Amino acid sequence: MDMGLIAIGAGLAVFTGMGAGIGMGIATSKACEAVARQPEATGKINQVLLIGLALAESTAIYGFVISIIMIFTMGK
Amino acid sequence: MDMGLIAIGAGLAVFTGMGAGIGMGIATSKACEAVARQPEATGKINQVLLIGLALAESTAIYGFVISIIMIFTMGK
Amino acid sequence: MDMGLIAIGAGLAVFTGMGAGIGMGIATSKACEAVARQPEATGKINQVLLIGLALAESTAIYGFVISIIMIFTMGK
Amino acid sequence: MDMGLIAIGAGLAVFTGMGAGIGMGIATSKACEAVARQPEATGKINQVLLIGLALAESTAIYGFVISIIMIFTMGK
Amino acid sequence: MDMGLIAIGAGLAVFTGMGAGIGMGIATSKACEAVARQPEATGKINQVLLIGLALAESTAIYGFVISIIMIFTMGK
Amino acid sequence: MDMGLIAIGAGLAVFTGMGAGIGMGIATSKACEAVARQPEATGKINQVLLIGLALAESTAIYGFVISIIMIFTMGK
Amino acid sequence: MDMGLIAIGAGLAVFTGMGAGIGMGIATSKACEAVARQPEATGKINQVLLIGLALAESTAIYGFVISIIMIFTMGK
Amino acid sequence: MDMGLIAIGAGLAVFTGMGAGIGMGIATSKACEAVARQPEATGKINQVLLIGLALAESTAIYGFVISIIMIFTMGK
Amino acid sequence: MDMGLIAIGAGLAVFTGMGAGIGMGIATSKACEAVARQPEATGKINQVLLIGLALAESTAIYGFVISIIMIFTMGK
Amino acid sequence: MDMGLIAIGAGLAVFTGMGAGIGMGIATSKACEAVARQPEATGKINQVLLIGLALAESTAIYGFVISIIMIFTMGK
Amino acid sequence: MDMGLIAIGAGLAVFTGMGAGIGMGIATSKACEAVARQPEATGKINQVLLIGLALAESTAIYGFVISIIMIFTMGK
Repeated sequence: MDMGLIAIGAGLAVFTGMGAGIGMGIATSKACEAVARQPEATGKINQVLLIGLALAESTAIYGFVISIIMIFTMGK
Repeated sequence: MDMGLIAIGAGLAVFTGMGAGIGMGIATSKACEAVARQPEATGKINQVLLIGLALAESTAIYGFVISIIMIFTMGK
Repeated sequence: MDMGLIAIGAGLAVFTGMGAGIGMGIATSKACEAVARQPEATGKINQVLLIGLALAESTAIYGFVISIIMIFTMGK
Repeated sequence: MDMGLIAIGAGLAVFTGMGAGIGMGIATSKACEAVARQPEATGKINQVLLIGLALAESTAIYGFVISIIMIFTMGK
Repeated sequence: MDMGLIAIGAGLAVFTGMGAGIGMGIATSKACEAVARQPEATGKINQVLLIGLALAESTAIYGFVISIIMIFTMGK
Repeated sequence: MDMGLIAIGAGLAVFTGMGAGIGMGIATSKACEAVARQPEATGKINQVLLIGLALAESTAIYGFVISIIMIFTMGK
Repeated sequence: MDMGLIAIGAGLAVFTGMGAGIGMGIATSKACEAVARQPEATGKINQVLLIGLALAESTAIYGFVISIIMIFTMGK
Repeated sequence: MDMGLIAIGAGLAVFTGMGAGIGMGIATSKACEAVARQPEATGKINQVLLIGLALAESTAIYGFVISIIMIFTMGK
Repeated sequence: MDMGLIAIGAGLAVFTGMGAGIGMGIATSKACEAVARQPEATGKINQVLLIGLALAESTAIYGFVISIIMIFTMGK
Repeated sequence: MDMGLIAIGAGLAVFTGMGAGIGMGIATSKACEAVARQPEATGKINQVLLIGLALAESTAIYGFVISIIMIFTMGK
Repeated sequence: MDMGLIAIGAGLAVFTGMGAGIGMGIATSKACEAVARQPEATGKINQVLLIGLALAESTAIYGFVISIIMIFTMGK
C-alpha cells in the first residue's frame, strides 16, 4: 500500500507545476501586450520576462525533482 | 489496492496540465488583443508568445511523463 | 476495491479538461474583443487563437487519454 | 464498496464541466461587450465565439462521457 | 458504507454547478455593462448572452442529472 | 458510518452555492458600475441582472435540494 | 466515528460561506468605485448592491443552516 | 478517532474565513482607489465599504462559531 | 491516530491565512496604485487600507488561534 | 501511522504560504506599475507596499511556524 | 504505511510553490507592462520587482525545505 501512497504524494508534488503554468501564462500575456505597445523595447521586456519565467519555472522544477526523488528512492 | 492508489497518483500528476491549460489560454488571449492592436508586430508577438507557451506546455508534459511512468513502471 | 480507486484516478485525470475549459474561454473572450476592434485582422487573430486553443485542448486530451487507458487497461 | 468509489470517480469526472462553465461564461461576457461596441460585427464575433464555446463544451462532454461509462459499465 | 460513498459522489457531481454559477455571473456582469453602454443593442446582447448562459447552465444540468441518477439508481 | 459519509456528501452538495455566491457577486459588481454610468438605463440593466442572478441562484438551489434529499431520505 | 464524519460534513457545509465572502467583496468593491464616480446615484447603486448582497448572503445561509441541521439532528 | 475527525471538521469550518479574507481584500482595494479618485466622497465610500465588509466578515464569523461549537460541544 | 488527525485539522485551520494573504495582497496592490495617482491623499488611503487589512488579518488570526487550541488542548 | 498523518497536517500548514505567494505577487505587480507611472513617488509606494508584504508574509510565517511545531513536537 | 503518508505530506508541502508560481507570474506580467510604458524607469521597477519576487520565492522555499525535511528525517 506504501507504493500507492507514494504515487499520490509524487502526483501532488509534480502538480506544483500547475501554478507555474498559470503564472507563466499571465506573464507571457502581458509581455505580448507590452511588445505590441512598444516594439522597440522588446529587448528590455524579454529580459524582465525571462527573470520571471525562470523563477516561476523553478517552482515547477522543485515539484518535479521531489516527485522523481519520491518515485525512485522512497519505495525501496 | 496498490494499483488503485497509483491510478489516483497518476490522475493527480496529469492534472498538472490544468494549470498549463489556463495559463496558455490567458497568454493567447492577450496575444490576440496585441495582434489586433499592432498587426505589423505579429512576428515579434508570436515569438514572445511561443516562448511562454513552450514553457507552460512543459509543465503539462512533466505531469504527463510522471503519469505515464507511474502507470507503466510502478505497478510491476 | 481496486476498480473503485482506478475510477477515482480516471475521474481526476479527465478533470484536467477543466483547465482547458477555463483557458479556452479566456482566449476566446479576448479574441472576440479583438475582432470587434479590428474586424479586418480577423485572419491573423484566428491564426493566433487557433495555436493557443490547440495547445490548451492538448492538455484536455492528455487527461482524456490517461483516463481511457486507466479504465480499459489497468483494471484487467 | 466498489460501487461507492466508482460513484466518487464519476462525480469527479462530470465535475470537469465546472471549467467549461467558467470558461464559457468568460467568453460570453466579452462577446456581449464586443457586440455592444461593434454591433455590425456581430456575425464575425459569433463565429469566433462559437469555435471557442464548442471547444470548451467539448471538455465538459469528455467528463460527462467518462462519467456515464463509469456508472454503466465499470460496476458490472 | 456504499450508500455513503455514493452520496459523496453525488455531492461532487452536483458541485459542477459551481462553475456554471461563476461563469453565468461573469457573463451577466459584462452584459449589464454592455447594455449600459449601448442600450439600443439590448436585443443582440441578450441573444449572445442567452447562448452562453444556456451552454453554461447545461454543465450544471449534466452534474445535476448524474447526481440524481446516482442517488436513485446506484444504491439499489 | 453511512450517516457520516452522507453528511459529507450533503456538505459537498450545498457547497455548490459557493459558485453562485461568487458569480452573483461579480454580476452585481458590474451592474452597480453600469447603473453609475447610465442611471437612466437602470430598468434594462436590472432586467439583464435578474436573468443572470436567477440562473446562478438556480445552481445553488440544485445543491441545496440534493443536500436536503440526502439528509432526509438516504439515511433511512 | 459517525460524529466525526458529520463534523467534516458540517464543516464543508458552512464552508459555502467562502463563496459569498468573495462574491460580496467583489460586489462591494465595484459599488465603492461607482459611488466615487457618481455620488448622486448612491441610492440606486445601494439598491442594486443590496439585491446582490442579499442573494449572495443567502448561499452562505443555506450552508450555515445545513451545517446546524447536521450538528444538532443527525448525530442523534 | 472521533476527536481527530471533529478537528478536521472544525478546521474546515474556520477555513471559511479564507473567502472573507479574499473578499474584504478586494473590497478594500477598490475603496482605496475610489478614495484616491474622489477624496471628498470618503464618507459615502466608507459607508458602502463597511456594509460589504460587515456582511463578508459575517461569513467568517459563521465558520468561526461552528468551529468553536464543534471543538467544545461535539467531542463530549 | 487521533494526534495525526488533529494535526490535519490544525493544518487546515491555519491554512485560512491563505485567503488573508491573497486578499491583503490585492488590497495593497490597489493602495500602491492609488498613492501613485494621488500622493497627497496618502493619509486617507492608508486609513481605508488599514481597516481592510485589519479585518482580513483577523480571519488569519481566527485560523491561527483555532490551530493553536487544537494542538495544545485537544490531544490531551 | 501517526507520524504520517502529522506530516500531512504539516504539509497543509506550510501550504498556507501559497496565498501569501499569490498575494505578494499581486501587490508587487501593481507597485511596479505605480512606480512606472509616478517614479518620484517611489518612496511612498514602497512604504505602502512593505506594510502589505509584511502582513501577507506574516500569514506564510504562521503556517511555517505551525508546521515546524508539528514536525518537531507532536510526534514525540 | 507511514512512508506513504509522509510522501503525501511532502507533496503537499512542495505544492506551496504553486502560489509563488502564480504570484511571480503576475508580478512579472505587470513589470513587463511597466517597462514598456517607462523604459527609462527600468532600474527602479526591477528593484521593486526583485523585492516582491524574493519574498514570493521565499514561500516556495519554505515548502521545499519542509518537504526535504520530511523525506529525509521523518521516515527514520
